[in-house]
Order: sequence, then C-alpha cells, then structure tokens
Amino acid sequence: MSATISPLAPKTYPTLPAIEGVRLATAEAGIRYKNRTDVLLVTVEEGTAAAGVFTTSKCPSAPVDWCRAALKGGKARGLVVNSGNANAFTGKTGAQAVKLTAQIAAKALGCKPAEIVLASTGVIGEPLDATKFNGVLADCAARATGDAWLEAAKAIMTTDTYPKVATKTVKIDGVAVTINGIAKGAGMIAPDMATMLSFVFTDAPIAAGALKTLLKNAVNPSFNAITVDSDTSTSDTLILFATGAAKKRGCPKIISAGDKRLAAFSKALNALVMDLAHQVVKDGEGARHFVEITVDGAKSDASAKKIALSIANSPLVKTAIAGEDANWGRIVAAVGKAGEPADRDRLAISFGGIRVAHKGLRDPSYDEAQVSAYMKNEKIDIRVSLGLGKGKATVWTCDLTKEYVEINGDYRS
Amino acid sequence: MSATISPLAPKTYPTLPAIEGVRLATAEAGIRYKNRTDVLLVTVEEGTAAAGVFTTSKCPSAPVDWCRAALKGGKARGLVVNSGNANAFTGKTGAQAVKLTAQIAAKALGCKPAEIVLASTGVIGEPLDATKFNGVLADCAARATGDAWLEAAKAIMTTDTYPKVATKTVKIDGVAVTINGIAKGAGMIAPDMATMLSFVFTDAPIAAGALKTLLKNAVNPSFNAITVDSDTSTSDTLILFATGAAKKRGCPKIISAGDKRLAAFSKALNALVMDLAHQVVKDGEGARHFVEITVDGAKSDASAKKIALSIANSPLVKTAIAGEDANWGRIVAAVGKAGEPADRDRLAISFGGIRVAHKGLRDPSYDEAQVSAYMKNEKIDIRVSLGLGKGKATVWTCDLTKEYVEINGDYRS
Repeated sequence: MSATISPLAPKTYPTLPAIEGVRLATAEAGIRYKNRTDVLLVTVEEGTAAAGVFTTSKCPSAPVDWCRAALKGGKARGLVVNSGNANAFTGKTGAQAVKLTAQIAAKALGCKPAEIVLASTGVIGEPLDATKFNGVLADCAARATGDAWLEAAKAIMTTDTYPKVATKTVKIDGVAVTINGIAKGAGMIAPDMATMLSFVFTDAPIAAGALKTLLKNAVNPSFNAITVDSDTSTSDTLILFATGAAKKRGCPKIISAGDKRLAAFSKALNALVMDLAHQVVKDGEGARHFVEITVDGAKSDASAKKIALSIANSPLVKTAIAGEDANWGRIVAAVGKAGEPADRDRLAISFGGIRVAHKGLRDPSYDEAQVSAYMKNEKIDIRVSLGLGKGKATVWTCDLTKEYVEINGDYRS
Repeated sequence: MSATISPLAPKTYPTLPAIEGVRLATAEAGIRYKNRTDVLLVTVEEGTAAAGVFTTSKCPSAPVDWCRAALKGGKARGLVVNSGNANAFTGKTGAQAVKLTAQIAAKALGCKPAEIVLASTGVIGEPLDATKFNGVLADCAARATGDAWLEAAKAIMTTDTYPKVATKTVKIDGVAVTINGIAKGAGMIAPDMATMLSFVFTDAPIAAGALKTLLKNAVNPSFNAITVDSDTSTSDTLILFATGAAKKRGCPKIISAGDKRLAAFSKALNALVMDLAHQVVKDGEGARHFVEITVDGAKSDASAKKIALSIANSPLVKTAIAGEDANWGRIVAAVGKAGEPADRDRLAISFGGIRVAHKGLRDPSYDEAQVSAYMKNEKIDIRVSLGLGKGKATVWTCDLTKEYVEINGDYRS
C-alpha cells in the first residue's frame, strides 16, 4: 500500500445506505498485512440471484475457477474476499484453499459451500492458508451489519490508495430500489476486464439471467474500457447480487433484461459501474492525470476501441502526459501501431478541444501556450478523429509516472 | 539525448574496416541539435544492389514512403539520414522535404533522385526544412571516406546513449567479403520491427532479390524479436546495400538467397543484425538490465513468440526486474493475458536456470536467496515452459525504470 493518497481521489465518499438482505463485516485474518483488515464477509439472504463476469486470462486464479462453477445456478448466499494473497498459480493447494474457505463460510452462514462465492487479491503464487479463516468468518457472520460498506471497500484494498464505493437509488415500476457497489484495483489493470474486484448489490428482484445481461452491458463500456498498465490480472471478478427484498415492497419480479420497467435501473447500474471503473483508473499506481481518450471516425466501433486502447497503453503517450506535454506525434505513432485502418493524411487530434493536428499535419492555428496550460489539468481529454467512418469508442487511462515504477519495483513478489 | 551512457553499453567498439564502394561523411546541418552532427551521407558505387524492410505502422513517415518506392528497382547510389526530426506526420510538406533532400543528394552524387534512399529520426510532426541540406550534402560527398563508420553511427543518434556498430568478415567461395552495420534506437522500440534505423553494407555481389530474402530472414529473429516499450515507430527502416565490389577479387555473383556458397555470409549477416538488435535493447531508455525471454513447449513458434512478447511488454514484469525481484507471479499473469493456449497447471518458470515454479505452483526446492542474488546480474534470462507442444521463441527486452519515465516525460514534443 502506498502512503500517499492519489491526487485524483474523490474529495468525499458517499454514505451507502443499507440494502435489505445484505449484511457485511470485515476482520483481520492476518493473511499478509499487519494492523489492517484483510477479509470481507458479505451475507445475502436466501433466494438472492447472482451473476458474474471474470478475467479472460488463460491462467485464472483458483477463486475464479470456483466462482464460474458456483454461479452456474445463478444463486448465492455469501461472499468472502481476502486481500494480501491472490491464491493464483497455487495448483491443487489453491483449489483446496478455496474449498476450505467456502466450507468455513458455509458453516458460518448455514448454507452449502457451493452457495459461497469468493475472490482473492494480492500476491500471486503464494499458498493461501485458509485455516486462518477458521473462527474469523463465523465471528464476521455474527457481527455483520447493513452499513459496513466503506469498511468493506477498505478490507479488499491492495496497492489502492483509497476505498472505492458508489450508490444509486432508482425506481422500478414506482418502487425505490438501491444499488451499492464497491471495487478495488490500482495496478495490473487492463481489459478485458480491468484487473480488479468489484461487487455490486441491489434489493431489486431481478432473475439471474437478466442480471448477467445487465452486467455485460454495464461492463463493456466501463471496466472493459479502462487500462492502467495493459496488464490483465488472473483474478478479475465482478459479481452482481440481487436479493429481491424490494419485492415485499411491491417491486415486480423482473425476468428479462429487456423489460422496459428496468430502463432507469439499467441506466443507474451502468453509471454506477462506470463510476467505479473511473475510480479504479484514478487510483492507477502513481497516477497524476486521469485521461479520457475518444476515437471517432473509425471503420467500426471495435476498430475505434482498438486504436483508443493502443493510445491508452502506449508508454510513450503516458509518460508524455506525466510530463504535461501534448506530444501528439506519439499519438500518431500509437494510432499507426494499432494495425487498424487509419489514414495518416486525414487524422485530426485535439487536447481538451484544442485541435493540434489536422489533415495529416500540425494545425497551423494551434496555440502552444494554450495547450501547455491545458496539460496541467488533472483530467486530460484526447480526441482522435480518423475521418474514415462512423466507428467510435472512449477509453480511460492514467499517466505513467516514476511513482508507478517505484511502487511496482518495490512491491515484493 | 541522455547525459549518462547506458550501463549495458559495450565496453569497447570494434573498428569497422572500409568496404570497397562505400564512402561516408557526417555534418552539422542544424536540424534541431546544437554542437553535434545530425546528418549522414553514404555514397555507394554504381551497380550497388539494395533491399529494405520498413515499419508496419499504418502511419509511416514520408521517408519510409519514399524508400519503398525507390527500392522497387533494387538499386541505390546514396543514403541520407538525419536525426532531430522524423519528418513523420508532416503531410505534403513532408513528401516535398523528402523529394528536395533526394534532389540535393542526387546533385551532389551525380545520380538520379530516385537512386537516393533516406531516413529521418527524431521529433514527429515538425516540418523538416530540407533547404538546410543545400551545400551540406555536396560538401559531405566531397569529404566522404571509407572509414567514418563510428561517426556515421553517432550522427544518427537521438536518445541513444552510445553509437551502435558491428562488423563481420567471411568468405564466399573462398573470397573474403565484409559486412558492416550501424544502427540507432533507444525508445519507441517494438516489433514489427523495432523502432530504429539500421544500415548494413557489404562488398559481396548479391542480387537485390536475394538481399531481400536474406534481410527478412535476419530481421525476424532479431529486430522483430526485441521490444523496449511496445511502441512501434512510424520510421523503422533497415536497408542492406551490396556494392558487389568483391567481384573484382573473384567473388562469384550470387543470384539466389538459397545459394549454398552464401551459407557463411548468411550466418554472419544474421549474427551482425542480432548484435545490432541487442545493442538497441541494451540502450533502451533507462535500461539497467538486459532481459532474454525464452518460451518453449508452446503450440507453435508463433504462439511462443506472442507469449514471449506479452511477458516482455508487461510493465509489471519490467518494473519487477528493475526492482531486481524474481516476480514470477507477474510472468504467469503475462502468459495468461497473451490469449494463446496455456495451461496454468503445466507451467514451469525459471530465472537463470533456477526453477522457481513448476506444474502450476512454486517449486518447493527453490532457494529464494539464490534467485535474489541472480537478479542482480546485468543480463537476466527468463524461461517459461508451457508443456503443451514444440513451439519455441526467444525475445529480448530491458527493464522499466524511473529513468525511462524521466527521459520520456522530459523529451519535448
């Protein structure tokens, strides 16, 4: 963990209201860190629907394997998350540790191990001693309350410099429902999806199949459009839980993601997930600038996204932004290396709406002093117009600073 | 340019012998830098065969466009290289600057502009004032000698901290021929091919078609297997010139790259190009460690190379090496994100022959102190065995240090 909080951190944290059917508690299990919480238990009431999306890594962690299997039925009763150890690349021992953790949690909650979902974040390759959860999870279950959201977000942090929380309240068919989300992530962040853990909870009664669709729609333009360092983790996990408790207050049960009564909910969920994704980038290791990159005029949306990510992942673009230098030449190079259709002589590039390049060369009217002043902002907007078609995409990243190297050169394996 | 020479620089430079039919001169044209040479003129005698390989960027520089057209005939009479300005993303002005440079050089050499090949390296997006070559190139042509190789390598440097030269002498059918090469490159280095300029000269009489094949074979395992920062340049250029002067000494004219009499030449060319490619990586911006990554047991050689490059381009792997940390967990993550076939539970990873991970978990016999001591070496060997097939590839990179960020955050656009 870093001693200094990211300068891009939110100035205030919202207070997350309780969600009926969800209780949380954190504890110090002593996995790796000293004098801080490192385990989170969330209990969700019986009948809670759940859906998840996971890393595309070919070497996923043991908890990812477990969750994929456990969520096939679309149900869950509890979530255990630990920080300090990712339980990834730990072979059979890793699978055994996951199983033992699920058993300990299931016993504490009075449910089946298969109803427990899990996530681990931290060092890769070290065996996770799950016996440390003995007693700890039962104690958490006994203490769990509806308002420990910020504590929950803190317990799952690794190199994060601040906890990430978000909340929204909307109506489904006239009945108010709440969505709360927490996330962690600061390094090893790249689509698909960003290296991070995120857990979103709602009291809306939505079937698991619909949850899965809603989640995919929410993740694509958000967590799948952010990058800190182009490194995809073995452990990426985003799980959406719907307790359905709002049904008692007259909220209709929603079966399909296409149900028109979901419009406001769907919009709020997308915004909440986007908010969490942006918080992850703003806590990018060593980040000093939050960068939004929009590519338009591409042959297709997919092509635009590939080019936007090529720019976002370019170490030369990222170091230039760290140096507060509007180095559009490096953007041209990043467009060129993406391998997607691009015509050098049609390219236009702007920083914060100030066009610096146009039709394949420097914009003669551009005022260097104005652009230099703009580059001192915390938020930097870059737009690249290809002039070829209607494809468009936006992605977010942060700059690459000496602090990134410091954090990652010192973080012990 | 950096004030400090890379610690990975060669301790001594070889003296390159003259090559019959090749003369070189450098000058201060005042393109951008002060008090250093920034232009190189190489004259090659009439009848010289030439072949080139260029960047795969979709936004190539104006000189790359020119060379592709000029080399269609497989001949050249002169080469002009300037540093300080890449003449890339300069629109029609850029094409005009290239044409004017070729005209000035052609006049100085008494040949046609189409017989001149060119390369430019430095800042992207600034117009190149080719009128500065007026008089300068004629003067270079008058002064050119056969022994200015090190001066040539110095004149084309940008952020390089040392000049890159290599030489080999071998026999073709009993007749000694020489190969000399120079290169520049330190940042914006990624296949295909590495962001760099390299020019190789020989007196062997080899036809242009054969040169092209030899060049491609040499570049694939070398310049196309190195990466400093995953950023492909707009200007990558490697041109091989064969004056054929050795014919006068009885060397047979070689028409086909498959000619058995070329075996020693071909091997020497491959070694020379590999040497130059390694020199480029060892001068990687901020580099403190030279890293060789071998992946074996992949489904195919192409798959092995993709995985090896995924590791080589991972900022987390590169910062760990900067921190002298054998963080094999990050290597697992980089293998996983490559998208190629890999089985977590068969992976073996070693540093300098010391196996740290085996069959999907930490090797129980591995001695952390021994590996920590190994990580202090300048050269770090990493081997990843996938255990799936016979595909194999080796790539080279350097570590990612604070100095990389410093150099690239300060280098003006």
